[in-house]
Amino acid sequence: MMRSLPIGIFDSGVGGLTVYRALHDRLPNERFVYLGDTARVPYGTKSLATVERYAVENSEFLASLGIKILVVACNTASALALPKIRERIGLDVAGVIGPGGRKAVELTQDIPKPRIGVIATEATVASNAYFDAIRRASDSAEVLQQGCPLFVPLAEEGWTSEPETFSIAAKYLAGMKEFAPDALVLGCTHYPILRDVIQQTVGENVRLIDSGAATAEEVEKLLTEKDLANPNLIEGERKLCDDLDHFYVTDAAERFARVAERFLGTQPSKLEAIEVYGGDQVRQKRDR
Amino acid sequence: MMRSLPIGIFDSGVGGLTVYRALHDRLPNERFVYLGDTARVPYGTKSLATVERYAVENSEFLASLGIKILVVACNTASALALPKIRERIGLDVAGVIGPGGRKAVELTQDIPKPRIGVIATEATVASNAYFDAIRRASDSAEVLQQGCPLFVPLAEEGWTSEPETFSIAAKYLAGMKEFAPDALVLGCTHYPILRDVIQQTVGENVRLIDSGAATAEEVEKLLTEKDLANPNLIEGERKLCDDLDHFYVTDAAERFARVAERFLGTQPSKLEAIEVYGGDQVRQKRDR
Repeated sequence: MMRSLPIGIFDSGVGGLTVYRALHDRLPNERFVYLGDTARVPYGTKSLATVERYAVENSEFLASLGIKILVVACNTASALALPKIRERIGLDVAGVIGPGGRKAVELTQDIPKPRIGVIATEATVASNAYFDAIRRASDSAEVLQQGCPLFVPLAEEGWTSEPETFSIAAKYLAGMKEFAPDALVLGCTHYPILRDVIQQTVGENVRLIDSGAATAEEVEKLLTEKDLANPNLIEGERKLCDDLDHFYVTDAAERFARVAERFLGTQPSKLEAIEVYGGDQVRQKRDR
Repeated sequence: MMRSLPIGIFDSGVGGLTVYRALHDRLPNERFVYLGDTARVPYGTKSLATVERYAVENSEFLASLGIKILVVACNTASALALPKIRERIGLDVAGVIGPGGRKAVELTQDIPKPRIGVIATEATVASNAYFDAIRRASDSAEVLQQGCPLFVPLAEEGWTSEPETFSIAAKYLAGMKEFAPDALVLGCTHYPILRDVIQQTVGENVRLIDSGAATAEEVEKLLTEKDLANPNLIEGERKLCDDLDHFYVTDAAERFARVAERFLGTQPSKLEAIEVYGGDQVRQKRDR
């Protein structure tokens, strides 16, 4: 019975849609329920205690809907709140940082002293979570982290090939280019949207690691190990945002739908605005 | 006794510090208490109901400390929540949008058909609050509004003279330049930080209106009319952020102090992190 439940995903907002896309691509036989905490986005500038509280509230909301595993798509919440979430909900929980870090090590394992770069929000960089994840998987890797605060608003603005975006990327990534990484982790859910700009800036020879895609791989393994894969084949062609997947936001569903269109080229069929504050999960209103 | 109380100011975050600076410059004999709702910033992407709730919670917190008037420094909250705030607290409340709009009309009153531009966040533009304020003060003014979403992160990043900032400003303001406004309202608290870039982009002949400065003028008049000016002269030289002014944030005091340094060239002497959720005002922790 567990096996036919959907996979829960939460993010601080719209960025986690890139993780949803990666999971959807890899696991076409699964259904998803996504919560974007748009009332309280961004998490990256908030304190540990606050991020933990928000993350637990989001997780409890999704658990209350009935899910078989939980994916924490938000890098900040993955960096700060996994222990607290695991303590509170009796489900397997996957973050994006461990998979992203491990994938970078895996892809550079033939290099004696691999150089791994990480770009992320300032908060994720300050947490050293990717640094720690990479070091747990490899003693020899050399790691350089770089915060890129303007990448999130640039991605949400849809400026994926503007000259200003290239110019800002060149500025942020000058030190990274000099470091000449073998692999570069996109350590923020928004960054895959700027993938082309980032690739061109650091050079075509650098392997870019999408933490969302790495997470989808690990979730696939987890489903197999725990015998949780959906046994009932979904018939017909699955599409992103089709009506098998349910999306919730904590505020401003209209803006979420608009940015979803920019990120995925489509909008959720089922999108609902809810409240998750203080443990009481009240369905506030319907949009769309 | 009312007269010796401080003036309350709230903003969704750090941007309102430009309004604090304007008030401080104009009213050196007053004390201020500032609340930055950094746990829930930004407001600009949130719904009316949510912005109203946050604004009322912030206002009640400041009222509970003892203030003589309340300045809503946040443009989004000024656009959406003034009626609700006035309904809830028995104090005079000043927003930034009315004063900004009226100042633009005042400064262009000798022009038969003045052209007034407004730049702001997407939410403020969508609310039409500046448009309405200007039209209430003038039948003849022609108004053009333009959203500039990347200006806030650029200001917070401290990129006040980078070529990328000029290039982005040129992109956002191309239509505005063509409109050739007589006056241009800086309709977001962050924009005075980018004043030089904006002035150079639209041309030196365009009068820039800082809504914060316009608000300080109106607050000065209000204090006189209501006989609320502080009668006890403050001795010695007042400085921005000195220990006569008290600053509260709802989260991440350290980041607030860092951006305050960028915006004001100094940091609050008295800065405290508190919670204002759900009406219970709990002092959570002290920073600094």
